[in-house]
Amino acid sequence: MKTVTFDKVTLGGFWKNRFDINKNATIPTVYDRFSETGRFDAFKFDWKEGQPKQPHIFWDSDIAKWIEAVAYAITKCPDGRLEEIVDGVVDLIEKNRDESGYFNIYFTVCEPENRFTNRMAHELYCAGHLIEAAVAYKNATGKDKFLRLMCDYADYIEKVFFDEDSAKFSTPGHEEIELALVKLYEATGEKRYLEMSRRFVDKRGTSKKDEDSPFYISHAYDQSHKPVREMENATGHSVRAVYLYCAMADLALRLGDKSLLDACKRLFKSIAEKQMYITGGIGSTAYGERFTEDYDLPNDVAYSETCASIGLALFARRMSLLDPDSVYADIAEIAIYNCALAGVSLDGKSFFYVNPLEINLERYRKNKEYYQRKDNLLTQRVEVFDCSCCPPNIARFVASIGDFLYTYDENTVFVHHYFESEAEFEGIKITQKTDYPNSGRVIISACGLGCRRLAVRVPGWCESFSVNGKPFEGETVKGYAFLTAQNGESITLDFAMECRLAAANPAVEADIGRVALCRGPIVYCAERVDNGVPLNNLSVSARLNPSLEFDEKMQAYKIEADGFEDGSFGELYRTYRPDFKPRRIKFIPYFAFANRGESDMLVWIRIRE
Amino acid sequence: MKTVTFDKVTLGGFWKNRFDINKNATIPTVYDRFSETGRFDAFKFDWKEGQPKQPHIFWDSDIAKWIEAVAYAITKCPDGRLEEIVDGVVDLIEKNRDESGYFNIYFTVCEPENRFTNRMAHELYCAGHLIEAAVAYKNATGKDKFLRLMCDYADYIEKVFFDEDSAKFSTPGHEEIELALVKLYEATGEKRYLEMSRRFVDKRGTSKKDEDSPFYISHAYDQSHKPVREMENATGHSVRAVYLYCAMADLALRLGDKSLLDACKRLFKSIAEKQMYITGGIGSTAYGERFTEDYDLPNDVAYSETCASIGLALFARRMSLLDPDSVYADIAEIAIYNCALAGVSLDGKSFFYVNPLEINLERYRKNKEYYQRKDNLLTQRVEVFDCSCCPPNIARFVASIGDFLYTYDENTVFVHHYFESEAEFEGIKITQKTDYPNSGRVIISACGLGCRRLAVRVPGWCESFSVNGKPFEGETVKGYAFLTAQNGESITLDFAMECRLAAANPAVEADIGRVALCRGPIVYCAERVDNGVPLNNLSVSARLNPSLEFDEKMQAYKIEADGFEDGSFGELYRTYRPDFKPRRIKFIPYFAFANRGESDMLVWIRIRE
Repeated sequence: MKTVTFDKVTLGGFWKNRFDINKNATIPTVYDRFSETGRFDAFKFDWKEGQPKQPHIFWDSDIAKWIEAVAYAITKCPDGRLEEIVDGVVDLIEKNRDESGYFNIYFTVCEPENRFTNRMAHELYCAGHLIEAAVAYKNATGKDKFLRLMCDYADYIEKVFFDEDSAKFSTPGHEEIELALVKLYEATGEKRYLEMSRRFVDKRGTSKKDEDSPFYISHAYDQSHKPVREMENATGHSVRAVYLYCAMADLALRLGDKSLLDACKRLFKSIAEKQMYITGGIGSTAYGERFTEDYDLPNDVAYSETCASIGLALFARRMSLLDPDSVYADIAEIAIYNCALAGVSLDGKSFFYVNPLEINLERYRKNKEYYQRKDNLLTQRVEVFDCSCCPPNIARFVASIGDFLYTYDENTVFVHHYFESEAEFEGIKITQKTDYPNSGRVIISACGLGCRRLAVRVPGWCESFSVNGKPFEGETVKGYAFLTAQNGESITLDFAMECRLAAANPAVEADIGRVALCRGPIVYCAERVDNGVPLNNLSVSARLNPSLEFDEKMQAYKIEADGFEDGSFGELYRTYRPDFKPRRIKFIPYFAFANRGESDMLVWIRIRE
Repeated sequence: MKTVTFDKVTLGGFWKNRFDINKNATIPTVYDRFSETGRFDAFKFDWKEGQPKQPHIFWDSDIAKWIEAVAYAITKCPDGRLEEIVDGVVDLIEKNRDESGYFNIYFTVCEPENRFTNRMAHELYCAGHLIEAAVAYKNATGKDKFLRLMCDYADYIEKVFFDEDSAKFSTPGHEEIELALVKLYEATGEKRYLEMSRRFVDKRGTSKKDEDSPFYISHAYDQSHKPVREMENATGHSVRAVYLYCAMADLALRLGDKSLLDACKRLFKSIAEKQMYITGGIGSTAYGERFTEDYDLPNDVAYSETCASIGLALFARRMSLLDPDSVYADIAEIAIYNCALAGVSLDGKSFFYVNPLEINLERYRKNKEYYQRKDNLLTQRVEVFDCSCCPPNIARFVASIGDFLYTYDENTVFVHHYFESEAEFEGIKITQKTDYPNSGRVIISACGLGCRRLAVRVPGWCESFSVNGKPFEGETVKGYAFLTAQNGESITLDFAMECRLAAANPAVEADIGRVALCRGPIVYCAERVDNGVPLNNLSVSARLNPSLEFDEKMQAYKIEADGFEDGSFGELYRTYRPDFKPRRIKFIPYFAFANRGESDMLVWIRIRE
């Protein structure tokens, strides 16, 4: 099974709008913030002790992800000025790298004596992102200098970690290089890089050096508590976890490794069935930004980092190649339209790092001792963070969103998602006309399929589905409906897209007695700015009675629904009697929250029959 | 208006049982723990640097409260051995006090150079408790040595704080001496002591020295943020607050001070109408053990200290003398039967310091970073604490519970509470035959009232009330029904005592969509040990349909009521549909929680109509 990469896809509609905002606002704004904070200048290697703007251990990765975003954006939309900036950075990398091939700003400029001694210091993580950027830039421009530099660096890493085993640790404390090396293998054809990835992955959780290295919380925090093939549950820092699982899936595909695939399936289930917010967010606590326990999904202290949700979507996309089950694209879709997209403002210029499912300003103020972690208390989007992994990550993600659309082999083209788009690959041309995610109608036509069938995903949220106006009665396998398409024939798919209320498993204590309003793949939330009163004094009616209004800025529907507001009274306590005023409640897509100043927000709202 | 003191009251029924447990189990067990921890030996003043069991700044007060409890207990039930122990302590006080009259273990043995320099070091707080103990012991035994020693100490305090103004601070960081000095005045007739109390109270919040002293959180923490007469809201550490308010009420009564009375009324309302748990607990956070904001009453992190609830009852009792409104006895009753009584186990041998309204072991474990304060996470009763103010406090409180029963003047005897009891005072004899708090029927008879009427409190929880079988149609003023009783005539009062569900003001976010089961003055809770499943998966039915079973150990009814349990399902999320299994839910009185090992507990349970 192969992926149709984003460069083969021309987007329209919802995603074209997002692509343009990303290219015209997000990429420039991240550039400006990174310039102001000294991240670009750091590549000059001229920082001296006592000066401001000391390079940070993860700055290389911030710029690398920004370059990757630029590469994807200019593939579809060339931009000489952006290319010039990247070329300048590449020149500085060439100029300042070590003669060994090693390149790391912090460990050359600030702590040269400590190269590859500190497992927690993101050194290989930075290398991985630089490699991803180099591959992307080569693919976008044909220029291979950056890629050659990174091959040299990878060769040096191979020498240090595998030939000599001379580093103070065996595997990175923050995974990333494993999946990057698979990309480097794909870009160069060098099997050594795939083999390096496999060795890093297989060594994980088995190395005495790593076991003796410092760790945060436990070895499960960085997925080093056991060999990866023995892992049953997703554990630890959620970004690290899903980056590792991406690499495991990459290797399982390329090596035909059944035990690795089985581990990936277990870990995916552990997330999707036990540890994921309904928004596709993962990581239930700011303490370690990590998975905690099954069904532990508190809403106001959710970590639910943008990067983690992106990583989950990337993991799910890889799983679609290994196992043609719609659950993977379903989960990718949830993450894409909700938690990941919530990480960037509608204008593309400000960001969330943490994406809670409830903001309650009064509760935070009253109980500030219990909400001490500042990074868990962001109630306004900001333009840049000290730890600024998420802004360039969402930028590269949106710029390459077309990657998610199709996979294919000689028998089938899998249609995983519904984007207004045209795609051309291997002599095949597929067109989708759709207002998805706002409408469940998709008119799809294909030329050049030959004997291939189209396998269209029936979204997990969809309860009835018709083709060309008739209920679909053909073959459905693992959530994909198999269709035969005549050359150029338009097929109209109708996925019934009703407003619906979702309930969480009763083991999720935070969601007991509550529901989340959803429509299609979009999870909704209520904001106080629309509803006036404390949101927990509202309950939605099970009868719902929704009305929809399209919002241009959100490019999605706002929803009003029937609900109730608790009656107020003067006493502190009184004898209970039912006391609710009917009223309408306003909802907006979760991805659009916090775009109108600071306001309470709530996904899981009380239900009243 | 005068109080009928406990020594005039002979208890039966519920409180006789509690008195006996207190005398036979609590007082000895607290003695044993205080002996083991070195608190008694500390009175020998022979601790040396480097030895274990260094005297703590509040140990004097722990022993003083224990002596006070002994004094009250032996008043009704003489005990030569206990008296001998107290005499031994008094001899050591006499032997080891400073020639100036000063007595403080810590500031003589450990930091003699720092006498009266540290406002936060509980020095005057200890003095206050010693004075209270001395008064109690004199009243109980007629022996006046302890009282004389404490008069000397009070005289020395007057010299240092008022004649010389030579201490480093003007008023105590922890109030207590103010109310103790009023008791010393009552015991000795020395107006100087009443005047000292007034001066401490009036100086509070006005002193430059205090303003410049170190403080915890803010000057509101120890009620020094403004002059007491200007206070609108109860603020800060809740024990400190209510001890101050007790003294203010004492002074208002004895000095006929209207502005002080007005402040007391405002502060009482601030607690009872905005800041009190339904159990009579106060203090919404472990951080500062303090009042926070109006309607901020989280259940699982409630501080709700036993001492604070006792202090609230003491404040309410004083207010009943100033303002014949039943709200004061209502609040006292809530505190007495719920939060205060929950502070000691049914066998009298172990204690809670903090009395939360919810224990959720799984939530604590999952979110341990948010529940870091160990003293807020006690889920089992313990025999002694480092900070052991509560065990001897509940002991002295139970031993003198008769204090709450009656007040009187020349026209009226106010019957504030209903205890199976006989009381004799000023030629009056009143008998109550009742199973209260388990029954609302009280047969009351009085002799020697003369022209006085009986004013019986109609409890705030009571919705219908009859006298001798007929609905009461006479005069009710501020919640008291005025009755004329013939000499020796039995009057049968029936306060309809139904199971009822209480709701909290919708501004109390933690209680939204929830109710508390109550019967008479008793608030109920559900424990997991009785109900099997996570308590938040249960909801009680508004129809209730209760059945009662008397429990000998609790001396109260357990209740079973109709409710529902959430249906379980396998998915993490699914489309909402109502899914509840009817079932019975078991409740026990809140005061009896945590007597059968560690278990989840819940007062505010979800409601379903």
